[in-house]
Amino acid sequence: TSSKKILVLAGDGIGPEVMREVAKIVNWFRAYRGLDVDIAEELVGGASLEVHGVPIRDEVIQRAHEVDAILFGAVGDPKWAHVDFNLRPEAAILALRKELDLFANLRPAQVFDALADASTLKAEYVSKLDLLIVRETVGGIYFGTPRGIETLPDGSRRGINTELYTTSEIERVARVAFDAARKRQGHVCSVEKSNVMESGLLWREVVTSLQQAEYPDVTLTHMLADNCAMQLVRNPKQFDVIVTGNLFGDLLSDLASMLTGSLGMLPSATLGPLKQDGRRAALYEPIHGSAPDIAGQGIANPIAQILSFAMMLRYSFERDEDARLIETAIENILNTGLRTADIMTLGTARVGTEVMVAA
Amino acid sequence: TSSKKILVLAGDGIGPEVMREVAKIVNWFRAYRGLDVDIAEELVGGASLEVHGVPIRDEVIQRAHEVDAILFGAVGDPKWAHVDFNLRPEAAILALRKELDLFANLRPAQVFDALADASTLKAEYVSKLDLLIVRETVGGIYFGTPRGIETLPDGSRRGINTELYTTSEIERVARVAFDAARKRQGHVCSVEKSNVMESGLLWREVVTSLQQAEYPDVTLTHMLADNCAMQLVRNPKQFDVIVTGNLFGDLLSDLASMLTGSLGMLPSATLGPLKQDGRRAALYEPIHGSAPDIAGQGIANPIAQILSFAMMLRYSFERDEDARLIETAIENILNTGLRTADIMTLGTARVGTEVMVAA
Ligand SMILES: CC(C)[C@H](C(=O)O)[C@@H](O)C(=O)O
Ligand SMILES: CC(C)[C@H](C(=O)O)[C@@H](O)C(=O)O
Repeated sequence: TSSKKILVLAGDGIGPEVMREVAKIVNWFRAYRGLDVDIAEELVGGASLEVHGVPIRDEVIQRAHEVDAILFGAVGDPKWAHVDFNLRPEAAILALRKELDLFANLRPAQVFDALADASTLKAEYVSKLDLLIVRETVGGIYFGTPRGIETLPDGSRRGINTELYTTSEIERVARVAFDAARKRQGHVCSVEKSNVMESGLLWREVVTSLQQAEYPDVTLTHMLADNCAMQLVRNPKQFDVIVTGNLFGDLLSDLASMLTGSLGMLPSATLGPLKQDGRRAALYEPIHGSAPDIAGQGIANPIAQILSFAMMLRYSFERDEDARLIETAIENILNTGLRTADIMTLGTARVGTEVMVAA
Repeated sequence: TSSKKILVLAGDGIGPEVMREVAKIVNWFRAYRGLDVDIAEELVGGASLEVHGVPIRDEVIQRAHEVDAILFGAVGDPKWAHVDFNLRPEAAILALRKELDLFANLRPAQVFDALADASTLKAEYVSKLDLLIVRETVGGIYFGTPRGIETLPDGSRRGINTELYTTSEIERVARVAFDAARKRQGHVCSVEKSNVMESGLLWREVVTSLQQAEYPDVTLTHMLADNCAMQLVRNPKQFDVIVTGNLFGDLLSDLASMLTGSLGMLPSATLGPLKQDGRRAALYEPIHGSAPDIAGQGIANPIAQILSFAMMLRYSFERDEDARLIETAIENILNTGLRTADIMTLGTARVGTEVMVAA
């Protein structure tokens, strides 16, 4: 058969409960929209540590290689904060990114009309905000070596990490950003610290050359990362697509999400290289973390997880219409007055059901 | 004589013009408050490059070693964006930090009552905001080696930077943060990426040990840098003192400044180690940059530069009363309705004069 294969990795904290709402939606699409998918579930993060002693097993990585798309929940649990570096729940998502070469994280920061009020920023600065951060996710200081903590001759210690970026690593993520810009407002802002870091200087040069050679139709500007952090607060609507490295992308994309005031609403996609057969590995996950403080109470907002599934329908399965069905359903729900606070009261399960009813 | 020696380094862009307003204030303090200071001026940044071919001369560094305090303007000019790394205008401030071992940058983010409206954030989230970021400034990825851009065998290139932190580098900046917290709300939040970087893990461990050993009266929390970027937008008033490394501090302190909506109002101090004789090297500078786009038009806001001088009076010259005189004068001016926009209209020179009149 030509069933699409999805690997569901719900993870820790609120991961499993928001994922349950996606399962309802998947079933609805199976019944009413002819969606033909095979779903396998595996443990990751603290949940896997608990049972298997590792945050992700090799078999799960293998499985991830074989499926058409991965739906990821969230990992992280304070219980495991003191275990060894590569045993942390977070190591699961880092391993998936690295092993599947998921190098381009697409993080839209969008403000739903009904929720322009939810931001801590004045509505005028964020209403209709629609920016996309393209973050490199398998390079930079996250993975560079040498790394570690060494003991110096005098008994004191030294922590080391290495930021590394090659021409080709920069080029391929910049290409994702330029391609995305072509479908949007046609503007890319490349962000680094080229005034103090050589890796940033190379970043700027490579992005500039690529734009000149292949994307003359896209406008390119450059911004230092500190200035970008400021500009996101000062006037976020000046941006269309931002492309940046792993570490800056980590901070800036979270900052951008928070501007929307709708952290529980934002999905993301992380893509691997385009293969010969036109396919690419892809992992979809909400922006939010595992939120252990509210886990298990049935009050977690499942919308970001549901929208992550919608992104999967669009990017991995080319079911744009189905994706829009979910997105419109959610907008409708929000427009009829179901605000963030209400979502909390309403509970995780009701929201999942409402989305189906609205669809 | 016992004159205090000040080295004035106005730098580029709006640096010289805002510095002229400080000169007026210094003269007022000489005439009416018995301030006994010797002032020497030197070129730095693009201004020095233009005349001497380097962003800062060795003689100037030498002079900086000898004086009691440095008043810095701003450096940076797009004209020099393409010169070699260590010839950039920015190299001047980096060299001063490194050569004088100015390791602790104190960046208050304060909201003046009269300007709570100026923020892009809703007033309720920022009114009365008063947080202090203590940023390490002579270590981390800014200065670590190996660094550079190398050409690989296949002709492609690779950019490298190294993040390094030793126990003692972390300890001394954490000490500055804990000491500052004792004079404030008694709370320090230490920020790193200990979930992906070993240098951050060491950072967390060293800060924790120091608090347990020497600052049990100060409460200490830890936050990942991406979460901190979010929390600064979500609820900035949760913070008292934030302590963090060079690179995270660069982004987070600019972000925090922007929350206040008063970038032209915020001073900073960067301190060296306390010497045997109780003195410490200190450099005072506004948060804002050289703003080449508005330079020379007489519209730059000189308040941050004036407040930097006030910080100098307080921290280097122990003239707390004089510092307060300036600060109160500025608050009074703002309260009488001289808002940011008005300051622009009023012009750089008038603001300097108003401060003297109000004092
Ligand atoms: C969980 C953690 C390792 C991860 C990161 O730092 O990349 C997370 O913050 C993210 O942004 O996906
Ligand atoms: C001018 C530049 C090198 C500097 C830095 O990155 O530290 C500036 O942004 C700052 O924060 O003082």
